[in-house]
Amino acid sequence: MRTADEHALAALSLAPDPVPVELDLRHALGHVTAAAIRAHADSPPFDNSAMDGFAVRWADVHSAATAAPVMLALMGESRAGVPFTETLVPGRAIRIMTGAPMPAGADTVVPLEATSGDGADVTVLEARSEGAHVRRRAEDARTGDEVIGSGVELSARHLAAAAAVGAAHVVVFRSPRVGILSTGDELAPLGATLAPGEIYESNSVLLDGAVRRAGGMPVLLGPVRDSVADVVAAIRRDDVDLIVTTGGVSVGAYDVIKAALTDLGVEFMTVAMQPGKPQGLGSVDGLPLLCLPGNPVSVAVSFELFVLPVIRAMRGLPQPLPWTPTTAAAGWSSPAGREQFMPVRWDAGSVMPATGAGAGSHLMARLAMADGLARVPADVTEVRVGDSLEWRRFAG
Amino acid sequence: MRTADEHALAALSLAPDPVPVELDLRHALGHVTAAAIRAHADSPPFDNSAMDGFAVRWADVHSAATAAPVMLALMGESRAGVPFTETLVPGRAIRIMTGAPMPAGADTVVPLEATSGDGADVTVLEARSEGAHVRRRAEDARTGDEVIGSGVELSARHLAAAAAVGAAHVVVFRSPRVGILSTGDELAPLGATLAPGEIYESNSVLLDGAVRRAGGMPVLLGPVRDSVADVVAAIRRDDVDLIVTTGGVSVGAYDVIKAALTDLGVEFMTVAMQPGKPQGLGSVDGLPLLCLPGNPVSVAVSFELFVLPVIRAMRGLPQPLPWTPTTAAAGWSSPAGREQFMPVRWDAGSVMPATGAGAGSHLMARLAMADGLARVPADVTEVRVGDSLEWRRFAG
Repeated sequence: MRTADEHALAALSLAPDPVPVELDLRHALGHVTAAAIRAHADSPPFDNSAMDGFAVRWADVHSAATAAPVMLALMGESRAGVPFTETLVPGRAIRIMTGAPMPAGADTVVPLEATSGDGADVTVLEARSEGAHVRRRAEDARTGDEVIGSGVELSARHLAAAAAVGAAHVVVFRSPRVGILSTGDELAPLGATLAPGEIYESNSVLLDGAVRRAGGMPVLLGPVRDSVADVVAAIRRDDVDLIVTTGGVSVGAYDVIKAALTDLGVEFMTVAMQPGKPQGLGSVDGLPLLCLPGNPVSVAVSFELFVLPVIRAMRGLPQPLPWTPTTAAAGWSSPAGREQFMPVRWDAGSVMPATGAGAGSHLMARLAMADGLARVPADVTEVRVGDSLEWRRFAG
Repeated sequence: MRTADEHALAALSLAPDPVPVELDLRHALGHVTAAAIRAHADSPPFDNSAMDGFAVRWADVHSAATAAPVMLALMGESRAGVPFTETLVPGRAIRIMTGAPMPAGADTVVPLEATSGDGADVTVLEARSEGAHVRRRAEDARTGDEVIGSGVELSARHLAAAAAVGAAHVVVFRSPRVGILSTGDELAPLGATLAPGEIYESNSVLLDGAVRRAGGMPVLLGPVRDSVADVVAAIRRDDVDLIVTTGGVSVGAYDVIKAALTDLGVEFMTVAMQPGKPQGLGSVDGLPLLCLPGNPVSVAVSFELFVLPVIRAMRGLPQPLPWTPTTAAAGWSSPAGREQFMPVRWDAGSVMPATGAGAGSHLMARLAMADGLARVPADVTEVRVGDSLEWRRFAG
């Protein structure tokens, strides 16, 4: 049997290269940059005032810094969006608003609160230094500067920075479209009245949400009945980048995914893990498929370990997600020779099982209480209270 | 001057009560439950097999546990979705698949690998215990059980759990619709050629992304020019739950938001913080408005401190977001008498400024490098390398 890490690498090797696309800045939130974003314009684009006050020549007001107040006649006004277009005449001042362009000839701003005056002239009571309260053109970013690197997951602040330097579009990696196919004659739709032997279909609900949270775009391809023809028809898609199936991968007589896809080139194998031992993966006509078992807890674990890294790779994000140390707040058993991934609740630095990992892999309602997965090495058969182990919070 | 905490409480007092709505389960990801989700059906809905194998009576096979193998003739098959409808006859066995209903009369499952046989009969080589490998009806959740509490932000696993217990709809709090209005004659659209004195409008890009990341639905109401009539027209909306404005709240002669909204009941004040000292808030005809200053760094800080808590309250989430201890990896100055919120980069447990907080509050490109905000108390004027302080990672 291969290890979970080996299977994760095999899954990752199927991931198509991320596809760069140009998006409007307003649609790029959460995408990963495929190229650096450079300044198309200086930021700020011109020298401007940091305060409401008066634009002056330092040569005219420097005596106010040390000796007596200085009175200057006003020539006009510069405000945001409505610059003063003439040149400041020596011995005079221009009223200026925060963000407004510095008029030609002015080199210093005196804030309103350091002045007095009646409108026709202004008396400068204090002056700090040459260039005070002036924001310099390009002091934030100069045209051509790299403002955001390649491989950055774009936050609201990144987008605003790109906007501020004149970018309207950005080149990012496309969100992978992930087909989701659940299978089983026993599956009833959401909220339906159950016929004898039926259960509610919940795996596509889990995968739909998990794919969204991982930054992919889910496309529901099912559920389908246990019919080889239906399965084969459902996976013939050209509008998805990856297909994830659930159920039908084991040794039973009716394991339809295995029956339908083995001849098409998908490989089925056992992985030394609990839950999630039966797995399948491969490509059909170039379309990668990851075939997960059908138990809900197995699906949640397999998504975290095998599907999430593939989606991250297709989004241009690095691997792998880290595991962090914790301790066990309860004891539980783990199978010999298989790594165990136990859904756990986290509380104050330690973890305890939310569901079982083996016999409990159908306990979907309890899985909702889990915060993440604890990882128990293959050679450990008993986790005891206080034991050190590793865990990872669910990604979404 | 009021403190930032006082202003945050004043903002929070404007938040409308969260509004419960019923959503299809598949549209509820990330919403917060307004009522507990209870099981509509037992999970599992019937006793079923945990293994591929044979459904038997323990009375018939218990000798295989201790003494010799037992041969049983096969009566039929139970598979997922296609139950065996008769009652198991003593001395016989029924082939059963994982997840398939236990036939009446059977109490135990013997896994395939503990048997041998040619199809017409099965030889039980080992038997573990009465009831082995049977998943019991309702052992995950019983009809009427609370599966997910009230006030829970729904993950993919929560949704799948709700699906598994028969819920098709859930009652959650509606996403607040947040109107975004940026103002200024100097604002040019994304990527346009700048006329003299113009800058790119980036505040609505910041708020659009930040609102989405906070779980709200942004509605762009601007930008608008510095015109009282245009501002008043823009805020007369009945399709938003909250409006956030940027710019025009200070003491300048052209502070349009202040000019337009003071008479309508919005209050403008100074807050003892840097950046973000000028702020406004109030309600106009019952619609709450938060009026932020116009500098991009001030907008980012004000969003985190004042807008985010309001959106969280409207989503049904608890307050406040915690600050965590860190140390300063660089020194910087902070104004006397005002609490400082410095955008910082975080690295290996300590923080350093990404932008300035005062003179640097226009440094949008640099803000993109910040991971969060450090908080410097009002009585501290100098942060020195190694000083302890508090910080918070940006929420989105």
